[in-house]
Amino acid sequence: MTDFQKKYGGYLDFFEAALKKYCAEMNDLPSMLAESMRYSLLSGGKRVRPVLFFAALELFGRDFRGEAPLAVALECIHTYSLIHDDLPAMDDDDYRRGNPSNHKVFGEANAILAGDGLLSEACSMLLHEGMRSEAHLMAAACLMDAAGARGMVAGQSADLLYSGKAGSEEELRYIYEHKTGRLLTAPPVMAAILAGGDEASMRRFGRELGMLFQLTDDLLDVKGNGALMGKTAGKDEREGKLTCVKVFGIEKSERLADAAAADCMAILRAYGGRAAFLEDLVRFVRSRDN
Amino acid sequence: MTDFQKKYGGYLDFFEAALKKYCAEMNDLPSMLAESMRYSLLSGGKRVRPVLFFAALELFGRDFRGEAPLAVALECIHTYSLIHDDLPAMDDDDYRRGNPSNHKVFGEANAILAGDGLLSEACSMLLHEGMRSEAHLMAAACLMDAAGARGMVAGQSADLLYSGKAGSEEELRYIYEHKTGRLLTAPPVMAAILAGGDEASMRRFGRELGMLFQLTDDLLDVKGNGALMGKTAGKDEREGKLTCVKVFGIEKSERLADAAAADCMAILRAYGGRAAFLEDLVRFVRSRDN
Repeated sequence: MTDFQKKYGGYLDFFEAALKKYCAEMNDLPSMLAESMRYSLLSGGKRVRPVLFFAALELFGRDFRGEAPLAVALECIHTYSLIHDDLPAMDDDDYRRGNPSNHKVFGEANAILAGDGLLSEACSMLLHEGMRSEAHLMAAACLMDAAGARGMVAGQSADLLYSGKAGSEEELRYIYEHKTGRLLTAPPVMAAILAGGDEASMRRFGRELGMLFQLTDDLLDVKGNGALMGKTAGKDEREGKLTCVKVFGIEKSERLADAAAADCMAILRAYGGRAAFLEDLVRFVRSRDN
Repeated sequence: MTDFQKKYGGYLDFFEAALKKYCAEMNDLPSMLAESMRYSLLSGGKRVRPVLFFAALELFGRDFRGEAPLAVALECIHTYSLIHDDLPAMDDDDYRRGNPSNHKVFGEANAILAGDGLLSEACSMLLHEGMRSEAHLMAAACLMDAAGARGMVAGQSADLLYSGKAGSEEELRYIYEHKTGRLLTAPPVMAAILAGGDEASMRRFGRELGMLFQLTDDLLDVKGNGALMGKTAGKDEREGKLTCVKVFGIEKSERLADAAAADCMAILRAYGGRAAFLEDLVRFVRSRDN
């Protein structure tokens, strides 16, 4: 096991324990609502956003163990977006993380409510976290602004709008930056806010990492193997999604992914050896096969 | 025009102006998302929740004109819930407030995103309002807790669960208290938090008003006229919804509504003449025909 895998595993174990504890406290919710929220929250996934948040806290010398609620809120927001994106009226995906998607198990109505419930719970957690300190309130607002109608929801709306159309590079960049980028930019920026670190450099890092993440995601949809990815491969093209492969072709997309990874590394260089894990995380995202 | 109508109109004019200003600032959103959010936000409605919030602020001697953002967030949350409730997978309602429902105009995918966008925007507004003062943060958390998976979303989930089943009085009370009650209890409690007033009495008042509101809503679905109500009448029975009419019959439901109104009045009596508008508001809810 490499140092990277060991450290990733440590973050993951801590996060999964916090998430399980949170899910165990759902017993006062209507049973169907609790079950459908838990089903998607606990269905695995790489937990890239919480891990990124924890690693950025450590980059700034702060103990990540004190910030579990913000990490759980982050994952609740990511999970709600996946549930709603998979709905028949949206991307109509039957599988997610190797399991039947939420609406395939609980029906559309419960899936809509599970998403609404997760987003609302995240907001409640953020407001209560905001009572801890001014920095927590600022970090919470940073996350919610990233998730909102000017952030992730805007990206999803643009993604719908441009499906089946030719689409330009500018439109692709808008989708990348909003749909994927904003929720990957928020974790390192939140960490900087909490630790008094350099927000601007974390914002640049998050944006490049978001680009890299979505470039490799689009490439995986073409090259990838559905079983490994846990979702249906080749869907983007069938649905006429605006992807980097459509705009640039595979070869140029690979080069752009290399460039985004190099930009991430250049930003991290300023942090010296403390950034070793984040550098490995960039390599991991670049070379992932699921 | 009665004093009540004049005062209601004053609150309404102030609120509609704040809402229009808010909607005018949506120009940086993807056009379809902005349009669908605006469509439902600006489609009229009685604005009972903002008016209740403003009136409760005045009950405690506080100028309501300083609290427009909380009122807008409240209406965004109410509106998101209506958009999602109307979806084909949920209550499948083609009309709302006399107009085609959101998904009939913009399609299901955009309606889901408009709801997500409104809820996210409300959360962002609440977090930013929370930066004004500790009381604002507490009031914001009170609203979000009311809207969430232990509040309104729980009520909607229970409403789905009990549709088409016999259902008990206890289950009906759970739906009433959560689906409708929580978002009508939040405004007067938020006002008490902001003004340092009696939260417990406002919580009791809100709960009774919520009961009254939902009792008259269920009764209107049976007695009412679709054109006046702006939505389809007689739907509850066709869909097997658990309503007071189903559990108690019309006559007992009318008596329960009278009792809830009387309970509201009893709580308001402690506030003397300052509660005149809220007393009229209770009468208005009791006798409404839409």
